[in-house]
Amino acid sequence: MKARVHITLKSGVLDPQGRAIQHALGVMGFAGVEDVRQGKYIEIELKETDRAKAKANLDAMCQKLLANTVIENYAIDLAD
Amino acid sequence: MKARVHITLKSGVLDPQGRAIQHALGVMGFAGVEDVRQGKYIEIELKETDRAKAKANLDAMCQKLLANTVIENYAIDLAD
Repeated sequence: MKARVHITLKSGVLDPQGRAIQHALGVMGFAGVEDVRQGKYIEIELKETDRAKAKANLDAMCQKLLANTVIENYAIDLAD
Repeated sequence: MKARVHITLKSGVLDPQGRAIQHALGVMGFAGVEDVRQGKYIEIELKETDRAKAKANLDAMCQKLLANTVIENYAIDLAD
């Protein structure tokens, strides 16, 4: 089973990477870029075939390793 | 208009970050993790309201700044 995990900074948390991209785009001549936020995207291939168990496992992975839940949100999207 | 851009390593390109995550998950006791690939996820807020123009602009941004098209693929998803 394939899972897609998005990890994004919570709104209100300063995003220096996003700011740097926004600035660079402006310098390069791309006008009208109002905001840029950069997050992480992780694809995980699991052996587990039970959706509920896979979801619970992925939740634990996000909480314990993948996301810093103090400043980041995560979203899990199970394919198949 | 809001755009979501996913930047992922092309298949076949070694992903040391993904490997590190996979290894760490194994050490932490999460069994059955067969593969992990890490990519980038960028949210861009544009002033542009014309979808075609926004898409063309985002394509150029990805080609020139956001993605390294030698080793990375990108996917643009326009919301609204």
